[in-house]
Amino acid sequence: MHSLCFTSETSSNGVVERDFVVGDVPGVLWSSVAGSAHAPVVLMGHGGGLHKKTPALLARARHAVTTWGFTVVAIDAPGHGERPRTAEDELARAELRQALAAGDTGRFESTSVRYVSSLTERAVPEWRATLDALQELPEIGAEAPIGYGGGISMGTAIGVPLTAVEPRITAAVFGGGFFVYDALIEAARRITVPVQFLLPWDDEHVDRRSALALFDAFASTEKTLHANPGDHRTIRWVGLDDEFLARHLGRAAGSDPGRRAGVSAG
Amino acid sequence: MHSLCFTSETSSNGVVERDFVVGDVPGVLWSSVAGSAHAPVVLMGHGGGLHKKTPALLARARHAVTTWGFTVVAIDAPGHGERPRTAEDELARAELRQALAAGDTGRFESTSVRYVSSLTERAVPEWRATLDALQELPEIGAEAPIGYGGGISMGTAIGVPLTAVEPRITAAVFGGGFFVYDALIEAARRITVPVQFLLPWDDEHVDRRSALALFDAFASTEKTLHANPGDHRTIRWVGLDDEFLARHLGRAAGSDPGRRAGVSAG
Repeated sequence: MHSLCFTSETSSNGVVERDFVVGDVPGVLWSSVAGSAHAPVVLMGHGGGLHKKTPALLARARHAVTTWGFTVVAIDAPGHGERPRTAEDELARAELRQALAAGDTGRFESTSVRYVSSLTERAVPEWRATLDALQELPEIGAEAPIGYGGGISMGTAIGVPLTAVEPRITAAVFGGGFFVYDALIEAARRITVPVQFLLPWDDEHVDRRSALALFDAFASTEKTLHANPGDHRTIRWVGLDDEFLARHLGRAAGSDPGRRAGVSAG
Repeated sequence: MHSLCFTSETSSNGVVERDFVVGDVPGVLWSSVAGSAHAPVVLMGHGGGLHKKTPALLARARHAVTTWGFTVVAIDAPGHGERPRTAEDELARAELRQALAAGDTGRFESTSVRYVSSLTERAVPEWRATLDALQELPEIGAEAPIGYGGGISMGTAIGVPLTAVEPRITAAVFGGGFFVYDALIEAARRITVPVQFLLPWDDEHVDRRSALALFDAFASTEKTLHANPGDHRTIRWVGLDDEFLARHLGRAAGSDPGRRAGVSAG
């Protein structure tokens, strides 16, 4: 098992940002400067072609830290961000560009599914190793509740099989915006934790029926579908249940360190 | 044009409840005991076979009055509550019972569509006449913003064509749980105001695809779909955007009469 090694630390506006590596997987951990002992941990996925520190992901992480006192973690997916791509990854990406340019939607979908499922197979064990290493940190330990904070698109393609096999994840935010394949539907059927599912209603490339089938497959008794117009890049979420993770990870009111201390002492 | 005549008045827990008639249509108006001058008006629909004062509708009305200072209005649909049924209504209801008992889903759907569309044709002009009469009341007038507060099922079957032809309605809550027919899809295409759409994900009788097609048809740039497990009787809504109507009817914070007075004086 690899330990988590911090490689740099900065802080601004109440949020500490620490880069780390677990083996050869680089990640980043955001937490409250006010202290984060055993605060709920939210695992954030990123979209295809993106990385662990996009502006949108940074904004979501900062919001989660300053509003709820969460500790937020993101890692680069295989072949994304700082990580090298395999020859197969390069080939798949070239094929995706060609299919898109040629308007070959069938080839675009089949290549996308093959590429994303290959990434997912590699990413799930990486997330689990990262979780093992995070729990070795005294500030997290085995006590901190863990949620998957999603990210639609590839963040969900990775998060669904991860949540299906990972009992430490007790609530999850997923979403549409990518091609759902059968193995994901099978994985969703094994998920019983509360799920919030965000669906961009209008996607240029992706059939929304497959996303609805994925929502339908979750075995969770508590699951909520939320859809707004737009595709997965342009969507503007309206009327979202912002407290979903806070409710399920036991952090329903702000990031008061005194409250946490009280919980620990009690 | 018929005037609105109040027939009784009671009040409890900060809410005034006044029964009224407009012509031969009986209705009820809930408002704040603290005063309701030009408060936003929310029109509430009720489900098939139910009436204007079911416990669920009463609870929603009280919540809207005490939380947002809204004035809430409900009327009995044709052949519902205090209103007589036509021979055709009785026939349709008998057919629905028979089809259900026989497990004849095709006949159940076709009869339901015929019955609901007949009710809708009568209910839309009744709602418009009620609105005319309400606006003659000094406490409402032409200034009060108007929203449709929905009710899934038949409340939506009536609310969609009403909102399509009624420019006074500036935001609407609709929902699934009934058989959507083509005329409703056509009406939805003419609706451009903000829409919140509530979908019970699992309905014993109704195909959810038709409800998704209805949501898809709204021309509104702001529309939100919210789905939870359950059918339209058993559903438990979780993480709903409770402020939707308050935001769009300009009543984003509580029912402070001073604030309203200030608005009127300004």
